[in-house]
Amino acid sequence: MSTPGNYWTTLVIFCYCFWGPSARAYTPGHNGTSPNIIILLMDDMGWGDLGVFGQPSKETPNLDRMAAEGMLLTDFYTANPLCSPSRASLLTGRLPIRNGFYTTNAHARNGYTPQEIMGGIPDSEVLLPELLKKAKYVNKIVGKWHLGHRTQFHPLKHGFDEWFGSPNCHFGPYDNKERPNIPVYRNKDMIGRYYDDIAIDVQTGEANLTQLYLKEALNFIGRQHDSSNPFFLYWSIDATHAPVYASKQFLGTSKRGRYGDAVREIDDSVGQILAYLQNLGIAENTFVFFTSDNGAALISAPFEGGSNGPFLCGKQTTFEGGMREPAIAWWPGHIPAGQVSHQLGNVMDLFTTSLSLAGLDPPRDREIDGIDLSPALLLTKTIDRPIFYYRGNEMMAVRVGMFKAHFWTWSNSWEEFAQGIDFCPGQNVSGVTTHVQQEHTMIPLLFHLGRDPGEKYPISVTSMEYRNAIPQIFAIVQKHKETMVPGEPQLNVCDRAVMNWSPPGCEKLNKCLTPPASNPWKCVWPH
Amino acid sequence: MSTPGNYWTTLVIFCYCFWGPSARAYTPGHNGTSPNIIILLMDDMGWGDLGVFGQPSKETPNLDRMAAEGMLLTDFYTANPLCSPSRASLLTGRLPIRNGFYTTNAHARNGYTPQEIMGGIPDSEVLLPELLKKAKYVNKIVGKWHLGHRTQFHPLKHGFDEWFGSPNCHFGPYDNKERPNIPVYRNKDMIGRYYDDIAIDVQTGEANLTQLYLKEALNFIGRQHDSSNPFFLYWSIDATHAPVYASKQFLGTSKRGRYGDAVREIDDSVGQILAYLQNLGIAENTFVFFTSDNGAALISAPFEGGSNGPFLCGKQTTFEGGMREPAIAWWPGHIPAGQVSHQLGNVMDLFTTSLSLAGLDPPRDREIDGIDLSPALLLTKTIDRPIFYYRGNEMMAVRVGMFKAHFWTWSNSWEEFAQGIDFCPGQNVSGVTTHVQQEHTMIPLLFHLGRDPGEKYPISVTSMEYRNAIPQIFAIVQKHKETMVPGEPQLNVCDRAVMNWSPPGCEKLNKCLTPPASNPWKCVWPH
Repeated sequence: MSTPGNYWTTLVIFCYCFWGPSARAYTPGHNGTSPNIIILLMDDMGWGDLGVFGQPSKETPNLDRMAAEGMLLTDFYTANPLCSPSRASLLTGRLPIRNGFYTTNAHARNGYTPQEIMGGIPDSEVLLPELLKKAKYVNKIVGKWHLGHRTQFHPLKHGFDEWFGSPNCHFGPYDNKERPNIPVYRNKDMIGRYYDDIAIDVQTGEANLTQLYLKEALNFIGRQHDSSNPFFLYWSIDATHAPVYASKQFLGTSKRGRYGDAVREIDDSVGQILAYLQNLGIAENTFVFFTSDNGAALISAPFEGGSNGPFLCGKQTTFEGGMREPAIAWWPGHIPAGQVSHQLGNVMDLFTTSLSLAGLDPPRDREIDGIDLSPALLLTKTIDRPIFYYRGNEMMAVRVGMFKAHFWTWSNSWEEFAQGIDFCPGQNVSGVTTHVQQEHTMIPLLFHLGRDPGEKYPISVTSMEYRNAIPQIFAIVQKHKETMVPGEPQLNVCDRAVMNWSPPGCEKLNKCLTPPASNPWKCVWPH
Repeated sequence: MSTPGNYWTTLVIFCYCFWGPSARAYTPGHNGTSPNIIILLMDDMGWGDLGVFGQPSKETPNLDRMAAEGMLLTDFYTANPLCSPSRASLLTGRLPIRNGFYTTNAHARNGYTPQEIMGGIPDSEVLLPELLKKAKYVNKIVGKWHLGHRTQFHPLKHGFDEWFGSPNCHFGPYDNKERPNIPVYRNKDMIGRYYDDIAIDVQTGEANLTQLYLKEALNFIGRQHDSSNPFFLYWSIDATHAPVYASKQFLGTSKRGRYGDAVREIDDSVGQILAYLQNLGIAENTFVFFTSDNGAALISAPFEGGSNGPFLCGKQTTFEGGMREPAIAWWPGHIPAGQVSHQLGNVMDLFTTSLSLAGLDPPRDREIDGIDLSPALLLTKTIDRPIFYYRGNEMMAVRVGMFKAHFWTWSNSWEEFAQGIDFCPGQNVSGVTTHVQQEHTMIPLLFHLGRDPGEKYPISVTSMEYRNAIPQIFAIVQKHKETMVPGEPQLNVCDRAVMNWSPPGCEKLNKCLTPPASNPWKCVWPH
């Protein structure tokens, strides 16, 4: 699609001569503007859901082509195996334990933002769109926000100029008495509620939401493309989160059932977005990144959950299946086509990388966990960095190079497991997928993810390999813990009074509901 | 690489006008000759070992390119989850239970051709190279034969003109007293023995065998390429069968350890073979098919075993991980580039398809299980056909469309499992990966391989889906069983006297060993 050769050589020489090797890989303003940035964030989509990552149905021709035209990242991670903390990390560049998207109600528990949650993204956190405004970006979020549904937490209070979507998951339908249906917003006001006004048929799986989200994306791109301001589009759609849905035209078209129908519609939509960028002639000035918020939700499989390919377990866990994400970077003329990168990446890097592309520095008054991936993406360099796997308030594991050390192992409790809740269906690695929180801090369980991506064969503690790897890992973990100042936990307190009873704009629609009296409690996070 | 468009259109129209829709998809003799045929058969390589099938290391650029230039087959199977029967089926087009590559010593046991085996490929079977000779093909096998090591079973007795390789697996080293080392042959005579004369260092994994096999392939192609006779090259190399080996230049180069080193060397070799065909200008007259003999041997993982991607269990089992194979068809100008086919295929189809490409009919005096895949490969048609999963003398399962019904489930015995022999490491699907031979013939375990490729979620027997699928499956199985006439089992009798003590040619090399007295016994097949 692109012929980056000459431009590329010129850029490399230019960078080297004028800024030396440490200069930014990309220089914003080369055409008078910073590049547009599009982050396509999937919901519960697994690493193994794309053809290019080995899904046997091979039903993602557009995403596979995106990879062929850009760079496939095989070792890209989320910051947390659950939606809300992952999204908070993407937009702040910081681990959930720093930005507050965790709980201290119990040890190593996953928390998120259901309707009862009191917390949300603190004002003290600086979000990517807030910073991008310094470089005159126009920012839009389409889809699920999930950083708090109370008004002070809304996207337009945190740097976004536009919003079309919902604050919470599209769970439901509810009765609007015990529990209100989730509102859908256009910008600062609600325009209706799921199930009441925006149809999702949980029986048939039919909903045209992905088409609405696509239209919003195309419309925004179309409006902004010839503006002198660059744009940032955060397309965080949720068709692959249970209850899984697809439009009528896609329902029943996949070999994989309803989940596959949703993937096919998303694939088609991504194809349309990329084609639109090319048709408008702005593809070479638009950085696009595709990834997911956490591993496939195997508790919803096979009808409404995806695939983590060869990896162990799924969403909610700190095994590879819970945190390794599909990832593709696309930027014709800048990212060389057809590349595969084994760079260890993280959704938090999208924060720092986006700032870098916009010519901005990350905040200096706080720890930022995301790194600038542009040397990896644009110059195919490899940057040495660890990956930390957190679950709630606990660092469960760390990856250093090809080694992954587990300090704590846990899938879920025996009590939950006995109820049929299984984050590792069909998988059982003795001493690894434990149903008690098993501590290994003194003698970590060590895996080599190159020859054992499925975390099935712990390396013998008596081996030279183990003895060589562990001191290096311990040093990295110690440094990390020394600089760790946890943020105020946002996911500790719940209250039915704060649910989506009367969202902004409800009056105009006559859709305000009466909240119950406030009666806060410590949220219960069972796993 | 190729521009098949015009030729393609012409061929389709031509076929339609002159022979009607039922005519062969390919017409041999279009350039005065039938196409050359190359079958690249891997040993214990798993579906998930190729980048294009989702191996996270993405270390197979040549095979991935082969797929991009040709057709990737996602649903291609072996006829048996073990080496010898699979190979016998490939070359006869018939299930092992027909061609004799099975045992009746116990129920549903895997058997192969160790040195003690009395049996081998019966003279009554007609092999692909024998038939290809009718169309003047020159036939060479490079690598492991595995259809019997006694002289009457040798490749040159069954249609091959040339052989470089061994009759058995490269197990060893042996002492040449209790057990002889495996001989290596050039044509009808041995040229030495593994470990004694042809180095395999089982400690370091170093052996240059793949380079020797590559040289043999290139040399044969180079000699034959401008002959008026077409050639058939059966390149059945064994670097990915434990003990896994690689040449010095590849050792230590993979992220996956020694197994990955072997895969990288094979990938490089395949790249060289395809490049050579192109350089010689015969690519458009050479049909190349890449596949493997059975699933990855998970008992040898992670150091010497591969990956079956998202599939259940491995070699020895009739789960998908034991029998679904990586498969790529390549024939520039004939097979449209960049295709993905979900055609249900089988190694037995390579027999029938090769005959079809050579303009030959399969034998009419016997049941042939392989079908002619050329409409699927050349015209991207889909042919409806079942896949039967045999283990020894038992049909364990059948696939019909997306449904797979298990009539028997078994991984291995509790006794073996207790010794640490595990064909499903880290996997355990309750009631499916059973350690007793569990019969389900009346109420089969049913899976939908589209939404559940990992065979983790049996379909409820009370569902409409189950009730609709089962009668159709029963009808297909009944028809299959009605026409089944098992062949004389070849894998029943063992005798140390028949081992490779004095292979042909040993006298010239002074390498004849003295066999013990004959003392035959019923071979013990534990799983």
